Amino acid sequence: MEKFIPLPGFRDFYPDTCAVRNYIFHHWRETARCFGFSEYEIPVLEPTDLYRRKSGDEIVRQLFHFTDAGDREVALRPETTPSLARMAAARQRDYRKPMKWFQIGACFRFEKPQKGRGREFYQWNCDILGENSPGADADLIAMAIHAMLAFGFREGDFRIRLSDRNVWPAFLAAQHMPEATLPAFLQIIDRLEREKEEVTSAKLAELGTSLDAVQSFISSKGQGHAPLESITADLAARGLAPFIEIDLGIVRGLAYYTGVVFEIFDLHHGMRAVAGGGRYDNLCELIGGTDLPAAGFAMGDMVITNLIRETPHALARMETWLAAQGKPDAYIIVASEDHRPDALALIHALRRAGYRADYSYSPAKVGKQFQTAESLNASTAIVIGSEFPEVKIKHLASRRESACHATGILSALAEALAWSPPPAETV
Amino acid sequence: MEKFIPLPGFRDFYPDTCAVRNYIFHHWRETARCFGFSEYEIPVLEPTDLYRRKSGDEIVRQLFHFTDAGDREVALRPETTPSLARMAAARQRDYRKPMKWFQIGACFRFEKPQKGRGREFYQWNCDILGENSPGADADLIAMAIHAMLAFGFREGDFRIRLSDRNVWPAFLAAQHMPEATLPAFLQIIDRLEREKEEVTSAKLAELGTSLDAVQSFISSKGQGHAPLESITADLAARGLAPFIEIDLGIVRGLAYYTGVVFEIFDLHHGMRAVAGGGRYDNLCELIGGTDLPAAGFAMGDMVITNLIRETPHALARMETWLAAQGKPDAYIIVASEDHRPDALALIHALRRAGYRADYSYSPAKVGKQFQTAESLNASTAIVIGSEFPEVKIKHLASRRESACHATGILSALAEALAWSPPPAETV
Repeated sequence: MEKFIPLPGFRDFYPDTCAVRNYIFHHWRETARCFGFSEYEIPVLEPTDLYRRKSGDEIVRQLFHFTDAGDREVALRPETTPSLARMAAARQRDYRKPMKWFQIGACFRFEKPQKGRGREFYQWNCDILGENSPGADADLIAMAIHAMLAFGFREGDFRIRLSDRNVWPAFLAAQHMPEATLPAFLQIIDRLEREKEEVTSAKLAELGTSLDAVQSFISSKGQGHAPLESITADLAARGLAPFIEIDLGIVRGLAYYTGVVFEIFDLHHGMRAVAGGGRYDNLCELIGGTDLPAAGFAMGDMVITNLIRETPHALARMETWLAAQGKPDAYIIVASEDHRPDALALIHALRRAGYRADYSYSPAKVGKQFQTAESLNASTAIVIGSEFPEVKIKHLASRRESACHATGILSALAEALAWSPPPAETV
Repeated sequence: MEKFIPLPGFRDFYPDTCAVRNYIFHHWRETARCFGFSEYEIPVLEPTDLYRRKSGDEIVRQLFHFTDAGDREVALRPETTPSLARMAAARQRDYRKPMKWFQIGACFRFEKPQKGRGREFYQWNCDILGENSPGADADLIAMAIHAMLAFGFREGDFRIRLSDRNVWPAFLAAQHMPEATLPAFLQIIDRLEREKEEVTSAKLAELGTSLDAVQSFISSKGQGHAPLESITADLAARGLAPFIEIDLGIVRGLAYYTGVVFEIFDLHHGMRAVAGGGRYDNLCELIGGTDLPAAGFAMGDMVITNLIRETPHALARMETWLAAQGKPDAYIIVASEDHRPDALALIHALRRAGYRADYSYSPAKVGKQFQTAESLNASTAIVIGSEFPEVKIKHLASRRESACHATGILSALAEALAWSPPPAETV
């Protein structure tokens, strides 16, 4: 018989890995909350033409795309920006500007699965629409940094590489290169670090410039370019200067960026970019026919999770969080089956009050039930037996005990849970 | 130019509808936490054969299915149970029994979109694996009720219709019908309420019984059938008897159920089932070759959301929750652009401390900034101007004011936020 396994590049999340995923989501969502962003969601399936409109025909071979039973050309979303542009363009009049929106969900790309890159992956997408001030770009960068700090990363662990595509037309003019060469030129810049020097040199020569000229321009760090200076001053005011590096070599491959672009890189492990984004002022017009300036960034779950696992202080923070998850507040021990109905009534009351309460579905020896309570890492065990309506509460970590009347269980449990040593000492 | 819209049966979630979705998810997740369930996740895309194995070829025309670029027959998940069975069968030895697992995510069916049924919808899936005691079935039903109560529904708003497929073989025996007629017979029972009486009568006569005999058996309410009596006693002990109705006519269409089955129905609006589930002891063997008893239920987001909207006391509870979401703790008013860097430093400190802080990205008149603070429903406005490092805090609801040194902002804000009337009175 065929054994089923997930498709290549797709993942099963068992409870332990799902908790890690939820830790990532938790900090993404918390960061968005602190920055005043509202959550939105888009369909997983969209018309293929939506992605064609944004990225051209070339994108289609990277998509999971097909013709549905209603004869529509459809694709699993490879990203959320085109759908966001569609939504924003359609209803921007209903919303105060700037619209600060975020989304968390799965995206899909038909690519060769490798470390840090799957065919199904989660992304955190943060965008500001309807605002063209560099203050918005700065806030997005501060937001990406905030998330990294929330994960426990520190100065020296990662850096933002920041640029503005609009620095390059001045270079082209100085080199007497026609404006029309800009897209081809930016493609060469995008591949600077990955391409052999002689290949780059030859390509640049063809366009009428040289690698020396390019490298000298990059080393100017964009001094005097107003948007970059405004953004770096804004971030410096927040104390974030140590995380910022101007790197004019960052242009980001995607053709739709129109201004500031940035990426986050780790400084120790040489992984893929942790996050990236920039300004894309023309997309809402292109997709939805509405002129709306926009900027945003995306962070995927796979690289950041790998990076947390390889950074001891970030890993320790995650493990502290994980250890506090999934702990029952009380494990109810049915010491006498005659009193199972009383135990069920008490369990119901505890859960209705918001406590996490667990118990054995079938009769079991008291010792066995205590073992289960311990192995579930329950905070307390509540014993219901022949003394009912008196019940015993045992605080498992401290071994302290008390007794109460069943009707007083809520306050007795609240008191017993306060016996816990503070979380920092329990892990 | 083509205007893009979502595909039929797919939904855009703008911030207001996404908040409603998040309210549903919040109570699903909170209920799962109280009941001691762990979250898992499965791929959105799976081999089509996985669904064929569970449900036969017939299911395929209800799927979004296609051949991917790697020549694999794949389908968007229409449900999570087959993937769960695969995962549980593969690694059940690593987990303590019972495995109490839940999942929340989008599922996809190629069906005619109509009220309460989309092509993409969210589902909450709760399952208990490795436990065949009726206590587990009872806890699942209690869990579904807990969620309904959390949404604010009350006695008289909804009811659980409970049955056990295994009551029917005794009926067949008493009617001298061959065992092999059971599947065809259950299909007729499944359609009792939707089919014309004469059609049902004719079909039953063909199998060697009558509508009268069936109705008389249904009105027996399964008395004496041990699993049903055990489950109703369990739920009665929790005070949940008023929510339970034995209805042997509930068999649920899906062939894979092997015992207890139940559905939740509203009692006022005649909507589709809000939730449904049951015991499926053979599926892990069928999918993964591992014998593992299992039971579970699913609740979709569409019917429950409609039901909340049409039930005033449930709607009021949701609106209270929604009003508390997305409120900035502080809106920072830059009264003098000279002090924008100081404002940015303060915003950074507030957010790092976990506060939701908002501000204008571009210079604006002070009155305009106050208007924005009011319209965002901010709790406080913090004014940074020429008196800096002295800053003013205004509590917008009470109009109270205080002033502090910038370095003391965290404690001053905490104090000002405590001026708020309690949430119950603010809405």
